[in-house]
Amino acid sequence: MTVIDIPAGSLFGVGNLPYGVFSTADASPRVGVRVGDSVVDLSVALGDPVFALPILNSFMAQGRARWIEVRQQVADLVTRDIADAAVHPIDAVTMHLPVGVADYVDFYASEHHATNLGRLFRPGTPPLMPNWKHLPVGYHGRSSTVVVSGTDIVRPCGQRKSPERDAPDFGPTRRLDIEAEMGFIVGVPSTMGESVSPDQFAEHVFGAVVVNDWSARDIQSWEYVPLGPFLGKSFATSISPWVVPMLALEAARVDTPVQDPKPLPYLRGEQRWGLDIDMAVEWNGHVVSRPPYAQMYWSPAQMLAHITINGAAASTGDLFASGTVSGPAVDQRGAFIEMSWGGAEPIAVGDESRTFLEDGDEILISATAPGADGARIGFGEVRGRILPATQALR
Amino acid sequence: MTVIDIPAGSLFGVGNLPYGVFSTADASPRVGVRVGDSVVDLSVALGDPVFALPILNSFMAQGRARWIEVRQQVADLVTRDIADAAVHPIDAVTMHLPVGVADYVDFYASEHHATNLGRLFRPGTPPLMPNWKHLPVGYHGRSSTVVVSGTDIVRPCGQRKSPERDAPDFGPTRRLDIEAEMGFIVGVPSTMGESVSPDQFAEHVFGAVVVNDWSARDIQSWEYVPLGPFLGKSFATSISPWVVPMLALEAARVDTPVQDPKPLPYLRGEQRWGLDIDMAVEWNGHVVSRPPYAQMYWSPAQMLAHITINGAAASTGDLFASGTVSGPAVDQRGAFIEMSWGGAEPIAVGDESRTFLEDGDEILISATAPGADGARIGFGEVRGRILPATQALR
Repeated sequence: MTVIDIPAGSLFGVGNLPYGVFSTADASPRVGVRVGDSVVDLSVALGDPVFALPILNSFMAQGRARWIEVRQQVADLVTRDIADAAVHPIDAVTMHLPVGVADYVDFYASEHHATNLGRLFRPGTPPLMPNWKHLPVGYHGRSSTVVVSGTDIVRPCGQRKSPERDAPDFGPTRRLDIEAEMGFIVGVPSTMGESVSPDQFAEHVFGAVVVNDWSARDIQSWEYVPLGPFLGKSFATSISPWVVPMLALEAARVDTPVQDPKPLPYLRGEQRWGLDIDMAVEWNGHVVSRPPYAQMYWSPAQMLAHITINGAAASTGDLFASGTVSGPAVDQRGAFIEMSWGGAEPIAVGDESRTFLEDGDEILISATAPGADGARIGFGEVRGRILPATQALR
Repeated sequence: MTVIDIPAGSLFGVGNLPYGVFSTADASPRVGVRVGDSVVDLSVALGDPVFALPILNSFMAQGRARWIEVRQQVADLVTRDIADAAVHPIDAVTMHLPVGVADYVDFYASEHHATNLGRLFRPGTPPLMPNWKHLPVGYHGRSSTVVVSGTDIVRPCGQRKSPERDAPDFGPTRRLDIEAEMGFIVGVPSTMGESVSPDQFAEHVFGAVVVNDWSARDIQSWEYVPLGPFLGKSFATSISPWVVPMLALEAARVDTPVQDPKPLPYLRGEQRWGLDIDMAVEWNGHVVSRPPYAQMYWSPAQMLAHITINGAAASTGDLFASGTVSGPAVDQRGAFIEMSWGGAEPIAVGDESRTFLEDGDEILISATAPGADGARIGFGEVRGRILPATQALR
């Protein structure tokens, strides 16, 4: 038997208890909870076969009462003696995609980001589209290319058109970018034909992850009219392996910025679902930006209400992401196209400078939030390294 | 034992043999093949447990050699005596969604449709966007709301903005429309990081269905800038229950219209994958349009090549649809917004006239193609009735 050591100041104390899917050299993927620098194997510790599955979906579908119950069981467990076989050091496990992703939706919920991109892409016109303050603008992305942190990202090829040329050419993207986002994962499905109000959010949404929505800006800018981003985004979306339960984020709940004009009734709720999450973007080990999630205009509760207001069902495993998190300052922006102002203003990355990503570059996005009792809780990180374009894409 | 009767002129002769998932009063969903007006239960007739599953995915993943083998086995079977327990009259079965839909992509591959919508939405500018003849424009849709033919469609609610008002209001769509399309279903997945060339199409794509991409035009036109259609489409997409194997469509393969400018090399193949499919749209029992699939500018082989050219994986169960099929004539258009020219020119529906769909209206889209030996083969139909908006959506 063993007692788990939680280092002082750990971002993974008993106020966090995020869920993930891990494997060890001798056993296949199953559900664990991170505590300090250890992973508790719930399939062993709690003996429930739902935790022997290689994705969280079945557990997430059991609903909020069960989420509360298991969270309490785990909290009790990790403060007592626990069987050695149920505990693994974090360095000895491999993390996997924690959920079977059903539908993936990406929003565009930062006013600063939408304004910056409007200025860059549509100079001379109002930067925000007329719909932007009336609804959380979003679109569906590709769920099969959602990958777990640590997955290498192969530079995608595609059609790119220079303004000075009549026709597009083909080749590796020259403007490979990130989008630092938070993502929210649905546990309890909704019924087709019924909508989920903002105040029903906590009944449906299980937890949150950090998202890097890799973006090939040259491919995107050529293809995206009129039906939206497609191949400029669909090659890969990375998420952090630890799903922080919404139950751990009570102390992080804040008001969103003032919403003016007042949203339509279906987007209004009594509950506060702004989230005071601090994000950090590291480029080759150097922090280049600290996007403040608290400044996001639309809350995740409003996003889910919007997704379902036309009767579309939400499914267990649905992932919806916030869109790029950008604050007002240059070093609070969550995408390099904004930080470098379309490539015009290079970004200092240690002793080097960059506009867009080069082969071999590595990006790490992390996030923390206030937890209970003044401790901070961590989301861990989403990490990815850029590999050169391959001949397999031609 | 019994010999299946195939009525003269049946669209479901031995040259077709489409797969579907059906249930009977006494047994749960399983895989069958339609022959004449009968359904052959493959779980009984062939005894392979892959056909006792409630979706086609596992069988589709087995690959083209296996598809050919089973097709031959079924063709042999249905011309001989067959066990009574393996045969059900079509009227005695309930059809289900035939596949577990992975990612859903919708294209925009008809030049006539794209030109008409460009004229309607962006008058005074060139109707086709500069990218349209260089790549098959497409976007991801919502896979969880793909439903089988016969599912009622509840009129969706959402934000709509009239030109004469400053702000949107909320309510049931006033411009509920259809899009008559063909959809293609991936059987054999591709690997992330590798692309599928147009000439590898037949190795990956199992079969085709008829699609009705229901569209709420007022919701769509307000929301779609700049990230594309979202809630205007995501409430429901209907597909026909019978998946016609690509193997049955050899005689339907034709050249696409001339593609000028010549596409980039990754979109070029040696094989012809235009398809001579005749579609028909019935509104409350009256045929109002006959969209000609043979006129589609981009082939499904080019669509799959485009989806994967950035390294995105194709998955078993992926559905990609063509976009509205429209020919040059008014009564060849596959969407009512085109037929009614944005609602300005009512459409004769029997003794009544319509612009967009009214509650209680029923739409049936069917399709046929040339089969082997001069016989025609049928895709069956995709059917849906409009129910009034419900109070559950508010």
